[in-house]
Amino acid sequence: MPYPNIVLRLPDWLEAALPPAERVYASREERMGLVIDLARHNIEHGSGGPFAAAVFDLDRRQLLAPGVNLVIDGHCSVAHAELVALMLAQQLRGSHDLGAPSLPPCELVTTTEPCAMCLGALPWSGIVSLVCGARDEDARKIGFDEGVKPADWPTVLARRGIRVYRDVCRPEARQVLQEYRQGGGPIYNATHNR
Amino acid sequence: MPYPNIVLRLPDWLEAALPPAERVYASREERMGLVIDLARHNIEHGSGGPFAAAVFDLDRRQLLAPGVNLVIDGHCSVAHAELVALMLAQQLRGSHDLGAPSLPPCELVTTTEPCAMCLGALPWSGIVSLVCGARDEDARKIGFDEGVKPADWPTVLARRGIRVYRDVCRPEARQVLQEYRQGGGPIYNATHNR
Repeated sequence: MPYPNIVLRLPDWLEAALPPAERVYASREERMGLVIDLARHNIEHGSGGPFAAAVFDLDRRQLLAPGVNLVIDGHCSVAHAELVALMLAQQLRGSHDLGAPSLPPCELVTTTEPCAMCLGALPWSGIVSLVCGARDEDARKIGFDEGVKPADWPTVLARRGIRVYRDVCRPEARQVLQEYRQGGGPIYNATHNR
Repeated sequence: MPYPNIVLRLPDWLEAALPPAERVYASREERMGLVIDLARHNIEHGSGGPFAAAVFDLDRRQLLAPGVNLVIDGHCSVAHAELVALMLAQQLRGSHDLGAPSLPPCELVTTTEPCAMCLGALPWSGIVSLVCGARDEDARKIGFDEGVKPADWPTVLARRGIRVYRDVCRPEARQVLQEYRQGGGPIYNATHNR
């Protein structure tokens, strides 16, 4: 039996939810505003967990690749919003390294601080900065497991050339997590972590 | 512009390199033997880094999903062998959780101990055991970056219900890494980690 390709499909609602591609996001708050919108759409459409992320081109200050959590519908525990956005950005750029000398610098913006897996993925991705909304503890409060991370993880990233900006629009980002819990959305940690 | 699906394609040589699907791998050493073969094929065909992994069904002791490193050719820094095998296994099972009560227990076998990203991914995957060949330091010795991992990472996994077996056929697994270096294979760490 031949093995199929591994395929991750962005939700059908996503294109319509995005501003025109040429839109400029001048500030970190504007970039965070977009991903918070996407996280809320992901809840409303029932297409995944209350998390979204996006890779931005920091020269043009434009969106390169959006990502939303696709774990349940995508049958993929790896499909956290951050990794979806990074994989899509790299596929669009035709390179595993968004930091390649021929490419403009890239930033990952995420509605919630990265879990242990996504944190470990960042130094391999080539991004130069990370912008976070809600904190780990905000995700833990509604039942999501963030895994074991070094206490000084922003320093770990800084040492590898990735600048970290925390608490950007944190109240708004946290609000989305709370809406998800209030709506009874599934907490999909793997069975034996429950 | 509509965004494409994210697609990871296993190398064309892979099907022909595998024993018949009904083959039983009774021991951890036999399972490791298969993934070491796949890592060597991946080098010989120039399809990626010197790393392979596979998910096995522990009830039937059969291969569920193979994985090889696809970082460069797949334009995907996330496409480490372990994550390729886990994503394929979950897609084949139709579940993000290989530990779901309706499914047989699954083991991940990897030629080299997982990097920080892959380590963080394991508790989300639903596997019950992890079998490793070469050690982190063997990969570091040929120039690969394993990232920042907790010193007691096997304990971290054990606490989440994942049993870890290290040093299974380590000399043979290390030999593949050395062959890669001797052959001048690319070390593809992201630019600003160099």
